[in-house]
Amino acid sequence: MSSLLIDMKAVEEAKSIVSKVAKKTPLSLAMGKSLRDQDVHLKFENFQVTGSFKIRGAMNKISALTDEEKSKGVIAASAGNHAQGVAKSAQIMGVESHIVMPMTAPLIKVSATKSYGAHVHLYGRYFDEAFQKAKELEQEKGFVFVHPYQDPKVIAGQATIGSEIFEDLPDIKSVVVPIGGGGLISGIAYVLKTLKPDIKVYGVVSEEAPGMANLKHNKKPKEVEMITTIADGIAVKNPSKEMFDNYISKYVDDIVTVSDEEMAQAIVYCMENEKAIVEGSGAAGLAAVLNGKLPLQGPSCVLLCGGNIDLNTVNSVIDTGLRKQGRLSRISTIVGDLPGALANLTKEFAMARANVLDVIHDRVSPELNVRETRIDFLLETMSLEHIEEIKNRLRGRGVRIVTEQLAED
Amino acid sequence: MSSLLIDMKAVEEAKSIVSKVAKKTPLSLAMGKSLRDQDVHLKFENFQVTGSFKIRGAMNKISALTDEEKSKGVIAASAGNHAQGVAKSAQIMGVESHIVMPMTAPLIKVSATKSYGAHVHLYGRYFDEAFQKAKELEQEKGFVFVHPYQDPKVIAGQATIGSEIFEDLPDIKSVVVPIGGGGLISGIAYVLKTLKPDIKVYGVVSEEAPGMANLKHNKKPKEVEMITTIADGIAVKNPSKEMFDNYISKYVDDIVTVSDEEMAQAIVYCMENEKAIVEGSGAAGLAAVLNGKLPLQGPSCVLLCGGNIDLNTVNSVIDTGLRKQGRLSRISTIVGDLPGALANLTKEFAMARANVLDVIHDRVSPELNVRETRIDFLLETMSLEHIEEIKNRLRGRGVRIVTEQLAED
Repeated sequence: MSSLLIDMKAVEEAKSIVSKVAKKTPLSLAMGKSLRDQDVHLKFENFQVTGSFKIRGAMNKISALTDEEKSKGVIAASAGNHAQGVAKSAQIMGVESHIVMPMTAPLIKVSATKSYGAHVHLYGRYFDEAFQKAKELEQEKGFVFVHPYQDPKVIAGQATIGSEIFEDLPDIKSVVVPIGGGGLISGIAYVLKTLKPDIKVYGVVSEEAPGMANLKHNKKPKEVEMITTIADGIAVKNPSKEMFDNYISKYVDDIVTVSDEEMAQAIVYCMENEKAIVEGSGAAGLAAVLNGKLPLQGPSCVLLCGGNIDLNTVNSVIDTGLRKQGRLSRISTIVGDLPGALANLTKEFAMARANVLDVIHDRVSPELNVRETRIDFLLETMSLEHIEEIKNRLRGRGVRIVTEQLAED
Repeated sequence: MSSLLIDMKAVEEAKSIVSKVAKKTPLSLAMGKSLRDQDVHLKFENFQVTGSFKIRGAMNKISALTDEEKSKGVIAASAGNHAQGVAKSAQIMGVESHIVMPMTAPLIKVSATKSYGAHVHLYGRYFDEAFQKAKELEQEKGFVFVHPYQDPKVIAGQATIGSEIFEDLPDIKSVVVPIGGGGLISGIAYVLKTLKPDIKVYGVVSEEAPGMANLKHNKKPKEVEMITTIADGIAVKNPSKEMFDNYISKYVDDIVTVSDEEMAQAIVYCMENEKAIVEGSGAAGLAAVLNGKLPLQGPSCVLLCGGNIDLNTVNSVIDTGLRKQGRLSRISTIVGDLPGALANLTKEFAMARANVLDVIHDRVSPELNVRETRIDFLLETMSLEHIEEIKNRLRGRGVRIVTEQLAED
């Protein structure tokens, strides 16, 4: 049990190893006004080599292997960021790496992992199956297993982020860190609580995978069969009791949950205000802050821990974000099925300065009378008020508008 | 004429003024492998306060005004980044600001400008009309006009980027900078050629607005009525002869053009590899490098000069980028109009691990025989090879596929 523990000397040593490869990522005051006013600073670990903090733990672990272990090669299981961290670290140290990834892993993460020279084994539908397979290969082939969090070398590697935060923001009063397995927050919390015992450390989990929050709040864990969330990086089914006992219970003040929609909003915030791409799990901490879920004291630091998000996902996140802001909207109308009906509608949109992106005709819906047609428009609009203005304009022309519930998907 | 000239002392003075508000933006080795291999560094001016470099020139200009001028207020014309730079600088210095923006300016830029406390006047369809209006208001109301580039204070402000580049990369051999009006490249080129006379300075313009490239290559300028490009920040109709004579002709070694598609590709590169949002004009320099248009010697620095891009534009840029990489594709099939026809097709897609995003049926196209239907699929695919594999699989089942030309829009 106690073998998971680290000390400040281990963190210092990790720093000298990690800094050979990983960047000291920027930490700066948030650009968005409401965050600035709260003195919220962001640390951009999404700009890290391999696109997430995982390179730190992996580098520290692999470089601590004996020559004999290095010659055997390493193995890891991961759907994404840990895979890239291990593959890149192994490549740098000339160690052969094998990564078992679930077949559902995003292709972009598979190809990135391969590009770092790893042998990628696609196996199983979910992470758990890939993990078991990796453990089997460890036994069969004698590879050295690199655990994503439950390892003192990995924890010490991630802990180097804590010491960078303290260097850049010595006045810090609170820190917010996403929790997956718990290695990241454990390392950071250990360092910051040691250097500054009165700091508040907050963890954030996805509400789809709230295991660690339940442990913290003494709630009975829910049995989850399958987790669907944009925060794949922190979608851990079963929280580690060892991580909880050794670190989380001691050093983390509270853990809150965030929804997919809140993370999507935080991703959009980062794109618009910080000009940065952050992945779902990377934005979890910010999502909690933007939604006022934490009693933050400034100056605070929110860790954006990764940026490996698929561009198709970015597209749907943008759509969600724009829809919430009233900048993308669907308006469904019912009009007489006559020549000129569409022209009358589009003229109104033009006059209201709304840009039409898509038009869908429906003549067979049950709500339609004979000689009526339903026309749905996807519009680029300016605000929620603008959408109301457009609807009122249409109503003023005798157009029936299908109720909001249907209209907003 | 000579009133446009600056010296190193002016740049040093600008630095002390600009640094009170603007960040020293990060400069780092590019993350993408092909760029790393060429020793290409990126300077991320998209992370600058207000999302672009424009704050530098505006700060330097406005803070040099006399108290009397400051009390009159300032006016500027801009469709975007200059507007935000002037508004924010004026706000910081307690000066009233008026910005004339064309009615076509992206809403996000209008609201950002307003959020910095500026009085925004929407006028005219294009920049030229907004510019004329601003000059009129200067006369009528006595506001002080802040030119976007043709002003030594503005040029000296932008020149501070050159001295930051030299500080971070003293070995630099070449630099690549987008050209709009020319203030940015003039300032940077002046500083770098002064500090390092053998450096190569390359400018990049949009092929839709190639004015400055034509001047450089002694080509007759084309009359353009209206410019449509994603690079709105550098869409300048008429290049300034004064900027050319005083700076570009002296300090810029060559100017090349890039297409919208090349800039879209560069934006996607930045999102995937650098986790950074860059706008079209901000990505112009990188687009030239990624497409091998410049005889770069490393170490080189490419300036990413702004990140103010509308999220709707990001969406379509992603689509373009994904389509070029074969990760999004449209396959149009012609099959018998019978029950089960769609199921047969979708089974093939499932077996080829392609995700169906959209299905469109067409029974009335002229190429169809009676009892035939055309079905178009929008698919999430893995690569261009994957698309070919899917098409061959379908052909093997006797499905007719509509030719590429039609299929790829």
